[in-house]
Amino acid sequence: MDRRRFTYLTATGLAGAGMAGLGRPRAHLAAASTQELRVDGTRLNDRLQALARIGRNPGGGNGRVAFSDADLEARAWYGSLLEEAGFATRVDVAGNLWGRREGTEAGRAPLALGSHLDSVPDGGHYDGPVGSVGALEVAWTLADADHATRHPVEVVVFPNEEGGKTGSRALAGEVEPFELDIETASGFTIGEGIRRIGGNPDQLADARLHPGDLAAFLELHVEQGAVLETDGMDIGVVEGIVGIMRWDVVVEGDTNHAGTTPMPRRRDALVAAARFVDTVHTTALEMPGRQVATVGRIEAEPGAPNVIPGRVRLTLEIRDLSMDGISRVYDRLVEQAEALGDATETTFSFSRFYVSGAAPTDPALRDAVESSAEELAFSTLRMPSGAGHDAQSIATFAPVGMIFVPSRDGISHAPEEFTSAEDVTRGTDVLLRTLLQADAMEWGPPR
Amino acid sequence: MDRRRFTYLTATGLAGAGMAGLGRPRAHLAAASTQELRVDGTRLNDRLQALARIGRNPGGGNGRVAFSDADLEARAWYGSLLEEAGFATRVDVAGNLWGRREGTEAGRAPLALGSHLDSVPDGGHYDGPVGSVGALEVAWTLADADHATRHPVEVVVFPNEEGGKTGSRALAGEVEPFELDIETASGFTIGEGIRRIGGNPDQLADARLHPGDLAAFLELHVEQGAVLETDGMDIGVVEGIVGIMRWDVVVEGDTNHAGTTPMPRRRDALVAAARFVDTVHTTALEMPGRQVATVGRIEAEPGAPNVIPGRVRLTLEIRDLSMDGISRVYDRLVEQAEALGDATETTFSFSRFYVSGAAPTDPALRDAVESSAEELAFSTLRMPSGAGHDAQSIATFAPVGMIFVPSRDGISHAPEEFTSAEDVTRGTDVLLRTLLQADAMEWGPPR
Repeated sequence: MDRRRFTYLTATGLAGAGMAGLGRPRAHLAAASTQELRVDGTRLNDRLQALARIGRNPGGGNGRVAFSDADLEARAWYGSLLEEAGFATRVDVAGNLWGRREGTEAGRAPLALGSHLDSVPDGGHYDGPVGSVGALEVAWTLADADHATRHPVEVVVFPNEEGGKTGSRALAGEVEPFELDIETASGFTIGEGIRRIGGNPDQLADARLHPGDLAAFLELHVEQGAVLETDGMDIGVVEGIVGIMRWDVVVEGDTNHAGTTPMPRRRDALVAAARFVDTVHTTALEMPGRQVATVGRIEAEPGAPNVIPGRVRLTLEIRDLSMDGISRVYDRLVEQAEALGDATETTFSFSRFYVSGAAPTDPALRDAVESSAEELAFSTLRMPSGAGHDAQSIATFAPVGMIFVPSRDGISHAPEEFTSAEDVTRGTDVLLRTLLQADAMEWGPPR
Repeated sequence: MDRRRFTYLTATGLAGAGMAGLGRPRAHLAAASTQELRVDGTRLNDRLQALARIGRNPGGGNGRVAFSDADLEARAWYGSLLEEAGFATRVDVAGNLWGRREGTEAGRAPLALGSHLDSVPDGGHYDGPVGSVGALEVAWTLADADHATRHPVEVVVFPNEEGGKTGSRALAGEVEPFELDIETASGFTIGEGIRRIGGNPDQLADARLHPGDLAAFLELHVEQGAVLETDGMDIGVVEGIVGIMRWDVVVEGDTNHAGTTPMPRRRDALVAAARFVDTVHTTALEMPGRQVATVGRIEAEPGAPNVIPGRVRLTLEIRDLSMDGISRVYDRLVEQAEALGDATETTFSFSRFYVSGAAPTDPALRDAVESSAEELAFSTLRMPSGAGHDAQSIATFAPVGMIFVPSRDGISHAPEEFTSAEDVTRGTDVLLRTLLQADAMEWGPPR
């Protein structure tokens, strides 16, 4: 694993080295205290609990689905706390809620940080809220310390992450017109929902951001896996959000009577498919790299206990940090399927029905996350994000960094979802420090 | 394969050896011509075609489902042809249609032969009809030759074979009261249907036959598999109807996110189930014997492309000529499932939901079928019947013999079902000769 360390430069040092003459005294003064700046863990976790009460289900989980009344309430609560920290809020046409604090150096694109507030229908209280309340706490910490940044800072809440990452994808120009008619769990269509939260779906194209519009984007999120917890690690340094490809695989053999067809004469599509399922697992496990491959759905036709299946349909999903990595695994599996088909007198056919591009994080931001954590004596692990996040769409036009904190038992999208207060505080401290490191970097000219 | 040959004894020879003093001149005279007796292939196949027109679907298949108007028409047609051959017909309380011709020796139980006339909803023209019209042709051949038999001969049509072997199972006392309320493909319940064909469901118990009531039963049937055709064999000497056991198998692992759970940390129930499916096939293939084992249905839960299945349900079916054979395969599979479970950190559980007892044919009748075929220079193969037949229930109280003729491509229960006219004639000639051999044997005292 690549564990290069970022050579830490204070804002002062960087300014001194590369920006002589551009210095603004107030920024320099504040930067001197950066190393000491820490978030208020009690306030942070109290707010996380307050947010959990908005949309809480009788069963203890959260049903704060996008565009619901609870979602609107949470956004209002969040926006007013941003305002209280001196951030100027606005809602863009896609319904993204932004809170802006100006930087000390004119002409710099903002550094953005945030996540989402919406939940799946019977979800938990951490997926989205940790990163959102974390970003809010960073905003409050900056305000409390009267800490000036060179770049403007924008805190952002992306709407409808769980229902299709509508807010962040709109910023990337990825939302297709038909999506606006999709009914969400709230009962409102996405278009209606955007209007409910103050956006304007008719002008969605105006939400689009371009390279240079954001200097960088940072997202703190719960891992939604059990890697950090199992390995006893505090902070995940996310190397990127994996790309995903999915295929429908059809295996064809001969449907036959399970009583009258002797074993050697069978062309059993399920036996061939079963060997393929095993091959998918073994190949993804044994090939170098951290790709994952999954068969999640399988159906044998005609599907009776006394009939040899003549046709099997299954899904194949491969995820990897690089699309080339996905292709390498896929090519290997197709080759093995052909050999399996020859051996069992069956045929395999693959048709791809879903692609989601891989979104690597920015190498300098990875290093910044890692060194920030290490300065705080938190253990770190570089890892891919196997799940999708808003950062994925932002990565199409801006450098992104992501920070993971442990999820107990890897559980997510369920009421049992849990991350300890300590871990939430650790992650938010790393988010703060990474932001300050990013503020000290040069991100190229804004558009 | 056990290919013992039956030492052929003419009725004359047998009577001479074992039944001195019991001889009836007419029987002895007729027996002298037994070796020459052959069925009329043209009449036989013409009648098979005539029957095919009763209930023929527009698409070319047959929809003569039990208790339908077409079924009633076919039974009436069949009964009148039996009468024409001098057989006295009657319908028992279960709706079995019998045609009886007396034997020459008083006090002997009858030799019975027959099959069914009903079809599956969009079936073919051979499954059932070949054995029924074959038995009718044997009756006509005996009548034409004025050939007397020592035993009475009973030709029988069993109702509702395809919908649960109602007629033959009633003879074995196996029909449960609840079955009478089952709605059949005709739209009538089984009880209503029995009444429609002249039976009386209220007195079903009176249909029951006991050991000694029939001297023996013979059934000619299409193979419904491709073994005879593939091996280029004319006649299948059926060793028995296989027993069947079926289980629901549940494999439990951990449901998890397919993106965030690295390959080495998965407890994928589908991977374990897939290995089990492969093991089922390989074990049944490699163990000595002719058992078959099939997984026909499989379902992974929750069944989404992006979720690692935590639970898989599948069906396991094992068939063999002996119930011990089934148990041996099952025990081996359970052992292997346990090892698979250990290796994949999953658990397997089995619950049996269906048992159908194995019904071996009578060894002397097997030999008689085989030697009859060989005298006619037909090639023979001893084989199990993997499918169920009326003979299966009759075997619970009487010796049974079964003759198979080839099914083209092994297709059955479909309009494409086909057996050539030559094969039908061959099978019927073997049925005739086997009957005459059986007539020459001693079957123990009737009840």
